[in-house]
Amino acid sequence: MNLHRNCELTLPGWLDQYMDEWNEPLDTVEQRMKLAVALSAENVKHHTGGPFGAIVVEEQGSRLLSVGVNLVTTAELSLAHAEMVALSLAQSAAQNWNLGAASRVQLITSCEPCAMCFGAVPWSGVSSIVWGASKEEAEAAGFDEGDKPENWAETLERRGIATQGGVLHEEAATVLARYARRDGAIYHPGKN
Amino acid sequence: MNLHRNCELTLPGWLDQYMDEWNEPLDTVEQRMKLAVALSAENVKHHTGGPFGAIVVEEQGSRLLSVGVNLVTTAELSLAHAEMVALSLAQSAAQNWNLGAASRVQLITSCEPCAMCFGAVPWSGVSSIVWGASKEEAEAAGFDEGDKPENWAETLERRGIATQGGVLHEEAATVLARYARRDGAIYHPGKN
Repeated sequence: MNLHRNCELTLPGWLDQYMDEWNEPLDTVEQRMKLAVALSAENVKHHTGGPFGAIVVEEQGSRLLSVGVNLVTTAELSLAHAEMVALSLAQSAAQNWNLGAASRVQLITSCEPCAMCFGAVPWSGVSSIVWGASKEEAEAAGFDEGDKPENWAETLERRGIATQGGVLHEEAATVLARYARRDGAIYHPGKN
Repeated sequence: MNLHRNCELTLPGWLDQYMDEWNEPLDTVEQRMKLAVALSAENVKHHTGGPFGAIVVEEQGSRLLSVGVNLVTTAELSLAHAEMVALSLAQSAAQNWNLGAASRVQLITSCEPCAMCFGAVPWSGVSSIVWGASKEEAEAAGFDEGDKPENWAETLERRGIATQGGVLHEEAATVLARYARRDGAIYHPGKN
């Protein structure tokens, strides 16, 4: 057969300059979330994907390990949610699938993770996850979050992964609502 | 910042020749599963990842759209489960994140999907999923399947995605058990 052997995730070009100009501290979860939410808004502005942003950062020391935005429609990959992009780029940069190998790292995402991204978190090696907008706010904007266990955050906690939701959730939800008002693409097999 | 912008999934080289020589039909789920299980065994033999294989095939017409194997330890990406690789390569080949855009397609995987791969299924556009070994058989070999909703298969059915488990499950489970006996790497942040 003519085997298709390769696919890739590549950040859009606008991110280079945007991150060069981002000089704010990343010491608190609110400061970190400010960047994730800004990325979600910029991604819509540049038409490079859905209204979702994420970053991976060292819990102590606050070193930024990667940034991610939703690239489903531009990469043509349904797995290219902001969280998956950020986790994968951090792993690729470290050349280690286990982000917890060297230090405690945190995933910050502008929106509560969907069922796929929730399932990906324990395999990634992160020590904590922080999200902004809630599932309800994402769904109000037309997004489908999938089917997670009801006690999904508790299952992460039981695995030693700390969880914190609702950080800057109004700012995060505003980006989602604005996207919905402008009829942004809802990339879902059932809705096309 | 020095932004890491790119990561990729690339099938191992041995798959080219292996697929060139695979001349068996793919008309039934058992025939399709035979290939997925063979890929899981070959992946271990070639030391290119864990004992998991998957394919994406058109339900009618049986055209093979992609193959995938677990590449977590070789790609250094925790998302590189066989199902994610197969779905992404099929989407990349079609240049469409929605595999259901043109026809009904099926994901065949040698093992019941973990929480991440389960969550990824509805976003991919497949119409059906068929698995071999069960969660219990994977866990007996030391793998962690993550936390899925108890009625996970039913949630897929409700979304219009047909599910069928246990196809060639003895053959599939044998590959997992053999891997476990030989102390194959269990790539899990908690077990390293």
